[in-house]
Amino acid sequence: MKLFSYWRSLASYRVRIALNLKGVDCDIETIDLLGGDQFEASYRAVNPQPVVPALVDGGTVLFQSLAIVEYLDETRPEPPLLPADPRGRARVRGIAQIASSDTHPLIVPRIRKYLTEDLALSDDELQAWIRRWMGAGLAAMEAHLAAGPGTGRFCHGDRPGLADLCLVPQIVGSRMFGCPMDPYPTAMRIFEACMAVDPIADAHPTKQPDFPADA
Amino acid sequence: MKLFSYWRSLASYRVRIALNLKGVDCDIETIDLLGGDQFEASYRAVNPQPVVPALVDGGTVLFQSLAIVEYLDETRPEPPLLPADPRGRARVRGIAQIASSDTHPLIVPRIRKYLTEDLALSDDELQAWIRRWMGAGLAAMEAHLAAGPGTGRFCHGDRPGLADLCLVPQIVGSRMFGCPMDPYPTAMRIFEACMAVDPIADAHPTKQPDFPADA
Repeated sequence: MKLFSYWRSLASYRVRIALNLKGVDCDIETIDLLGGDQFEASYRAVNPQPVVPALVDGGTVLFQSLAIVEYLDETRPEPPLLPADPRGRARVRGIAQIASSDTHPLIVPRIRKYLTEDLALSDDELQAWIRRWMGAGLAAMEAHLAAGPGTGRFCHGDRPGLADLCLVPQIVGSRMFGCPMDPYPTAMRIFEACMAVDPIADAHPTKQPDFPADA
Repeated sequence: MKLFSYWRSLASYRVRIALNLKGVDCDIETIDLLGGDQFEASYRAVNPQPVVPALVDGGTVLFQSLAIVEYLDETRPEPPLLPADPRGRARVRGIAQIASSDTHPLIVPRIRKYLTEDLALSDDELQAWIRRWMGAGLAAMEAHLAAGPGTGRFCHGDRPGLADLCLVPQIVGSRMFGCPMDPYPTAMRIFEACMAVDPIADAHPTKQPDFPADA
């Protein structure tokens, strides 16, 4: 199995956590998003959309982080990343999608580039954009986690799963961009519980082979 | 069952298609996003995130469109919205997520409002933004649909499913914003096939009870 990944891609980070929790060995090939590797013909032949991650399993190329994670969960069921009951599964997927749909797509490199290059946003304006949308996403996740029946040591119960593997990159990314984290005590409490789990801690961007010494 | 929805919400549109394909009767309560209904305390008590859709089934509130659709597919299995094999399921979810994660979140009302009010974008700049990101998403979907093993009369095989119920709103929204559609012949061919299916056609924004006479 081979994962096309980039150390600071938050979507790749989700898949790395899933692979680690499942104990799946996987080669990693770096696609340097800031250097433009995603536009090379060699990568376009793997994934026609110039984004990471992509996962190759045998002859199949999988794309989009949550589709990949669900595939891993269906083909390697232990430990499960989703609860067994439909209501619990919907809650976990819903919390995950707040990160993967409503939050992260707004701050990816191609959007930051468009904002600063095409729209000439200042550094301050870019930071305000990032904090606004990362904050809105975290606030929505916090509301579900703080009020929700179902929240346990992790986002849903006492085993890390699909929602946690979205929450952790969301928080790591938010901190990288200097977002204040005080308004999200439940999310931060769960984040700390996640970081005490070795397979999750090992997926951190700074622990990846392509993390640059001068970053 | 009750769906909190808005006629022009593309995420609500996905869930309406799923409900219609499943033949599920559902009350609709309008949340006028442009009028700010999503910020009212009565709606915040249902969904702490000020977005639609939300689906209430018995005592459970479901949120995030694709989480809701997967829930409907798990609890009302016929007709299925996902194929049976994990590779096919991953392809369908991946195509769906190109729309739901990488495309639609960039053009929702709150983002358009921020761009024009906080960042003072001109009409032309807003149109360029919308066309850029809707176009990028459609191009990625077209690449998968044109090349993919699996494409049939619909996005995957000969029965409409999760990818189609994302593709159709994406195309309706792109046309609403005046995006050129010529570069996406496979997507458009599938769109036309979808529009010939009554449960999909009936979910169109202009056929909703809250579609305003003067729109």
